[in-house]
Amino acid sequence: MKVRNPRTGIYDYEISPLSFETLQIKANAMRQAQKNWQVIGIEQRIKTIQRWKKALERHLEEITEALTIDTGRKIETESEINLVMAAIDQFCDLAHTYFKPGVQTIFHNNTYHIEEFSEPFELVGIIGTWQFPLQNVFIQVIPALLAGNAVMVKPSEKTPRFIKVIEKTINEILHFNNLIDFVEGGKETGEILCAITDSICYTGSEVNARKVYESSAKHFIPSTLSFAGKGAAIVTETADIEHASSAILWAGVFNAGQSADAIERVYVHRNIHSQFLSRLVGKSNLLTLAYPNINHGEIGPLISEKQATLINEQLADAVKKGAVVVAGAAKCLVQKGGYYCRPTILTNVNHQMKIMKEKTYGPILPVKSFLNEAQALDLANDSISPFTCSVFAGKDSETMKIAHKLKSKTVTINDAYLENRFYGNQKSSNTSLEIKAENIGTDSFKKFLKNKNLIFRK
Amino acid sequence: MKVRNPRTGIYDYEISPLSFETLQIKANAMRQAQKNWQVIGIEQRIKTIQRWKKALERHLEEITEALTIDTGRKIETESEINLVMAAIDQFCDLAHTYFKPGVQTIFHNNTYHIEEFSEPFELVGIIGTWQFPLQNVFIQVIPALLAGNAVMVKPSEKTPRFIKVIEKTINEILHFNNLIDFVEGGKETGEILCAITDSICYTGSEVNARKVYESSAKHFIPSTLSFAGKGAAIVTETADIEHASSAILWAGVFNAGQSADAIERVYVHRNIHSQFLSRLVGKSNLLTLAYPNINHGEIGPLISEKQATLINEQLADAVKKGAVVVAGAAKCLVQKGGYYCRPTILTNVNHQMKIMKEKTYGPILPVKSFLNEAQALDLANDSISPFTCSVFAGKDSETMKIAHKLKSKTVTINDAYLENRFYGNQKSSNTSLEIKAENIGTDSFKKFLKNKNLIFRK
Repeated sequence: MKVRNPRTGIYDYEISPLSFETLQIKANAMRQAQKNWQVIGIEQRIKTIQRWKKALERHLEEITEALTIDTGRKIETESEINLVMAAIDQFCDLAHTYFKPGVQTIFHNNTYHIEEFSEPFELVGIIGTWQFPLQNVFIQVIPALLAGNAVMVKPSEKTPRFIKVIEKTINEILHFNNLIDFVEGGKETGEILCAITDSICYTGSEVNARKVYESSAKHFIPSTLSFAGKGAAIVTETADIEHASSAILWAGVFNAGQSADAIERVYVHRNIHSQFLSRLVGKSNLLTLAYPNINHGEIGPLISEKQATLINEQLADAVKKGAVVVAGAAKCLVQKGGYYCRPTILTNVNHQMKIMKEKTYGPILPVKSFLNEAQALDLANDSISPFTCSVFAGKDSETMKIAHKLKSKTVTINDAYLENRFYGNQKSSNTSLEIKAENIGTDSFKKFLKNKNLIFRK
Repeated sequence: MKVRNPRTGIYDYEISPLSFETLQIKANAMRQAQKNWQVIGIEQRIKTIQRWKKALERHLEEITEALTIDTGRKIETESEINLVMAAIDQFCDLAHTYFKPGVQTIFHNNTYHIEEFSEPFELVGIIGTWQFPLQNVFIQVIPALLAGNAVMVKPSEKTPRFIKVIEKTINEILHFNNLIDFVEGGKETGEILCAITDSICYTGSEVNARKVYESSAKHFIPSTLSFAGKGAAIVTETADIEHASSAILWAGVFNAGQSADAIERVYVHRNIHSQFLSRLVGKSNLLTLAYPNINHGEIGPLISEKQATLINEQLADAVKKGAVVVAGAAKCLVQKGGYYCRPTILTNVNHQMKIMKEKTYGPILPVKSFLNEAQALDLANDSISPFTCSVFAGKDSETMKIAHKLKSKTVTINDAYLENRFYGNQKSSNTSLEIKAENIGTDSFKKFLKNKNLIFRK
């Protein structure tokens, strides 16, 4: 299976997906290793994870190098690695209290009481995606391991170069023998994971989330799906335009827009529409491509060739239907085989255009004006899938009213696409993260545990 | 669609499943009605549910009559209705505190905090089964409604006669117009529910749970599946034989064994095997068929003809492979078209027999002796699906050691197939219930709610 380099377009790497039989043999060995991992208890598991962190730090240069080739960008690679390191510490801190031994009485009456406790699934499968290849698997792998599971991980086949380095670090850790495995492969390997593990955790696109869900149903195992929606921002008449335009631009173009929760559509009150637009365009024009020098410029290449084609189709469709390009370009550039897309702002857009409804994964911000709150809500909620949303407004009462009416799983108030402060890392202001409550609090452990009940007669 | 009468074998009833289009129109109307139901708040919802309880009480005779024809048995019908009435009160009591307005802060640091609150799904689909047709839908319908959802319910096509009476009671409640609908139909209607609702809650067999899971994956909606396992009991050398034999017999034959969590296999320490068996056989021989008089005798007819055929196949397979029938008979009787199965005890059984591995849904108790704890655990855990288990032993340390090693979701200590004390109803000692923690505590609400997060910058 050949792998494309996003900066050159050359297929300069190759992976060899393992067969069903080989992976099943691995899975059996991993279930054996899991038993001891569960028995050693949470403090030993935390210590082992911390040793892994040290091993990762020892190989930081190699990881950075591989991940930079995988993704074609540098700033985001560094911030992704910083985030992972901070996240490891944060999960370990949480785990000390979360996994305190003990049971919870969940029901009692005169005759009976019921106690509940949690157990790991044994072998968890984690399937990742190419937008933030390291981060999106690690923020699942760490809590899954802390919960006492063995973990089989399949990163995206578009960004597999970092796997070999991670394998090196795993081999340096005593308890990790057969406990954790990063495997190379594409959709077929993902399907195999659904067949041989006890629970599947997927991060990526809605299209693939649907496939993973069907596969986990076929194999009758539970699945946790985290998938991208068409992120929206609402900017009301009372919003701080200076702040809103900066936050939205950032949320639209960071990592070249290749993020599950990037803002991909903006609804602005008509009274401030032109003012907002001119600020957004002005700031957008200051950004440059990280080409030819990877160390200069903010916008790296598009990682997926298929996605570059889709972006061009969405742009052509929008322009054909009347959209006006006020910053950037109506087409991605091809530079020596790599696809680059300048931060692009569109106006005169409507919901007949694909770019307002379908996931873009590119640094494109279509801006539409609205008349009143009701219309803004109708537009934002005109989405098939759950999405993330930001609301910018001057008054708390206004933001809360809108936030509660949004059919969005997460609403951020007067901010967007938050930097990685949730993982306690204040060093880099460039890092970003899909803010999902289930990835930061104790819910991050819950999805890797199953409950068991004991019923006692008094 | 014709419906069989379990006592006569005659197809004396008919249901007319609605088309996809008709159900979709209903679903749209229900989503409209849900909005107001959510807005009126929890106290109004509780009051409305209590009014429904009064309406159900007014029609108690009709409900009992219809459900008795549906299932062919009487004692269990009455206890099922008692349980539902008690459950309504219990859910309402829990709801007062559970739905207190307010949000929960789930994460905070120097810069941000995240608040989480719960929202109903809007339209929930509930699919029921034929073993306890009223109970298994009501213990889902009530919490789903209290959580603020509209609810479309499809009871089993094998036991649909009670639907018409429930419809009458629904029509008597002001707020229930378009909010709750009991629909008639089989598998096709169940599939439609997966296509038109926002979340599916299924109770029934593993075979059908797999189908519902695949269907909910196809339509990309969440599902909660509660399905039957091959319930097991372990009786150690130190157990109270008198108590264990009574509890296990009860858990094996109540409702003619037609229950998700019935005990369907017993493992007894070899030192007490013959003593236990003789007590079990003695008590079993005291039980009689509720035939010809429905008011006398403990064991009613088998509700499903298909299941009667399967039971006979399992019995024939077991006898062919060496099982010995020490009480009851190796074949279900047919009495004027109804299938009746006497409480049947088998010995000399092994795990090559279907009756030790496949769900029976009949009053059959195969008893196998074991040498030591390790062997007992191996036998009990030799099951593909999660199952319920009872452990009988004289010492707490012994029971807990076994309980923790069982791959069973629920373990009951020194008891089995508990009576309905969990719903606070002490009147009838005959009623029973699948004890699942998610059906009695606050988890009963959780599965009908989705979380929403608000992120604030400080």
